[in-house]
Amino acid sequence: MDLHDLTRKLHVKNDSKIVLLVADGLGGMPLNPGEKTELETANTPNLDELARKGVLGLSTPVLPGITPGSGPGHLGLFGYDPLQYQIGRGVLEALGIDFELGPNDVAIRGNFCSLDAAGNITDRRAGRIASDIGARLCEKLDKITVPDVEVFVRPVKEYRLVIVLRGEGLEGNVEDTDPQKTGVPPLDPVARDAGSQRTAEVIAEFLRQAREVLKDDHPANFLTMRGIDKKPHIPSYEEVYGLRAAAIAVYPMYRGLARLVGMDVLDAGSTLEDQCTRLEAVWNDYDFFFVHFKYTDSTGEDGNFAAKVERIEQLDAVVPRIAALKPDVLIVTGDHSTPSKMRSHSWHPVPTLLSANLARTDACTSFGENSCLKGGLGQFQAKHLMLLALAHAQRLEKFGA
Amino acid sequence: MDLHDLTRKLHVKNDSKIVLLVADGLGGMPLNPGEKTELETANTPNLDELARKGVLGLSTPVLPGITPGSGPGHLGLFGYDPLQYQIGRGVLEALGIDFELGPNDVAIRGNFCSLDAAGNITDRRAGRIASDIGARLCEKLDKITVPDVEVFVRPVKEYRLVIVLRGEGLEGNVEDTDPQKTGVPPLDPVARDAGSQRTAEVIAEFLRQAREVLKDDHPANFLTMRGIDKKPHIPSYEEVYGLRAAAIAVYPMYRGLARLVGMDVLDAGSTLEDQCTRLEAVWNDYDFFFVHFKYTDSTGEDGNFAAKVERIEQLDAVVPRIAALKPDVLIVTGDHSTPSKMRSHSWHPVPTLLSANLARTDACTSFGENSCLKGGLGQFQAKHLMLLALAHAQRLEKFGA
Repeated sequence: MDLHDLTRKLHVKNDSKIVLLVADGLGGMPLNPGEKTELETANTPNLDELARKGVLGLSTPVLPGITPGSGPGHLGLFGYDPLQYQIGRGVLEALGIDFELGPNDVAIRGNFCSLDAAGNITDRRAGRIASDIGARLCEKLDKITVPDVEVFVRPVKEYRLVIVLRGEGLEGNVEDTDPQKTGVPPLDPVARDAGSQRTAEVIAEFLRQAREVLKDDHPANFLTMRGIDKKPHIPSYEEVYGLRAAAIAVYPMYRGLARLVGMDVLDAGSTLEDQCTRLEAVWNDYDFFFVHFKYTDSTGEDGNFAAKVERIEQLDAVVPRIAALKPDVLIVTGDHSTPSKMRSHSWHPVPTLLSANLARTDACTSFGENSCLKGGLGQFQAKHLMLLALAHAQRLEKFGA
Repeated sequence: MDLHDLTRKLHVKNDSKIVLLVADGLGGMPLNPGEKTELETANTPNLDELARKGVLGLSTPVLPGITPGSGPGHLGLFGYDPLQYQIGRGVLEALGIDFELGPNDVAIRGNFCSLDAAGNITDRRAGRIASDIGARLCEKLDKITVPDVEVFVRPVKEYRLVIVLRGEGLEGNVEDTDPQKTGVPPLDPVARDAGSQRTAEVIAEFLRQAREVLKDDHPANFLTMRGIDKKPHIPSYEEVYGLRAAAIAVYPMYRGLARLVGMDVLDAGSTLEDQCTRLEAVWNDYDFFFVHFKYTDSTGEDGNFAAKVERIEQLDAVVPRIAALKPDVLIVTGDHSTPSKMRSHSWHPVPTLLSANLARTDACTSFGENSCLKGGLGQFQAKHLMLLALAHAQRLEKFGA
């Protein structure tokens, strides 16, 4: 049974408030066995206080051993099975530059590449051109027109770009044109189903013109395409949970992911303090608040243990402002682990803290990976977190009589 | 894969005995964070002794955050996925009054209601008429006859009744006639599929006559219907586990649930001591014994922490009588939690104790929510409990070679 068939039937509305505070990549690991993790090293009196009053656990974002990207990581936290709802790379890149995708838009991740005189790829990243060059080339490509279709070309960073095709009757099921190797020409766009035939034709026409437009721009004299897809249809928070939800996130990708599930995406300023100010300002307007903090992930990806510790302490410092609003349920967690030792996302379960009046408290007195291992929530699948949030807010009726 | 495809293939018969002692709503929570739960407060030397010799854990009845009714709670304990086997409210009400439903019976939960002169509902509960009035009206309705169909009308309590239609070719997929509001007439019965068309017609004819029969009985001058359904087909304990199973339960609903999975439902007397006496008497006749104790739930629903503690101690007192029979596997658990603090069923995981010669013991020395959190069974889905029971009774063969 689909989780949301259940929540659609069981959810009720009340005046409760739920805050989901996501510290991106929160989970970590010790630099050496027997030492403390980043979260355990950080001085977090406010989170520890919440841990004493609440209940802890560890969430598995997708499956044991599976390292999630930001998309699956957040969809899981939002209560959507990340194996069921998969987001194409083109869509994710579009979200990441705050491009507002419509339901008929096909989004494509592009890479500028270098072609030799024979038309074979010599460099799949066009010599990693600078971002300003990439941006200038995107402006040129953005002028391409295809009959009956709106074409948007937007730079991402360096050799990376996003192409969006907007028009009636375009499906997104088209093969990559990136051959994933050099010495061969880019592939032609091939539709995988009849509904995507027209999309493949539009792409072929776009690429025909692009070859002309870029012919003098070596090393970026062409582009390849990957992750061609439309955004998935994801039922909204309002529909499946009956929640008026707001996202208070600074980074575009997380704003975009929140938009995918129907959250209102609010101006968030640029710091955690700005985000708290926004949270306070809109407290009466919503039932559910997703607050996203990026820097626990980015410091982890930098491999900077001390900086990640510092960012966690920064997070801890705003907890009293959030707690002062007296949410019925306050959850602090991450979308995945990003151990500084690994300099990357990882599969390790994610520390999770749920503070609520109806939490069955456990013996945990601090927030950390080892403490969470003894927590009352046990180890659970991230996609079930929203069920727990709703339950503790008394927003779910009894199942069956 | 269906769990029972597995057990059908793997189960073997032997002379072992399994006792499943269900304390309804066993799980609880502290009145204040940091205090003890009902189970932790109770003085339970016998359960603690079992805990030392056995292995503990916490079961999730349906999914994290999902609060089960008694039906799903018990089906889970019996090893049937409560999301797969859903029981209509009419069926559950019929079980609750010990009405023995046949495979062709359509069961309906009825509510007496008040209609005004225009035929609109003015009170959906008919002024909460006394039970004896409800019973008298049911006697009148029970005389209604519909061609080719047997009609049974039985009182439940106050304004609540059960209607059972018995006849060939009746499916149970008919919409409620209760409009869930006043100021409008009851809805007509509408079939949701072709097979239920005749059922809808029978119901319409019954309601036509009922309106006439009850016309002078204001405030109970009509009735609405909900939860129209047949009992689900559930494969029996004998078939899926190879167990001759007996239910020793006092309350009708639990007797009915046991009957649904093919247990023999035995006379149980009215007290735990009576139930133990019955257990002793039939010990040689069955492989599996479901013993149900209601009052841990009802005291929880009353919000009476001290009374729930007392009921748990009462349960503890009969443990030596059960243990003296030397069951190969003795499980003590609940079908869900009912914290006195909440005065209701809840989603919190349920303390579970499994005592068996082959249990891999853990460090737990007492039976309580926090102790169970450290137990060797971990947190597990209730529907897997029967697999553990069978395994510890050496009734499951190896899977694969």
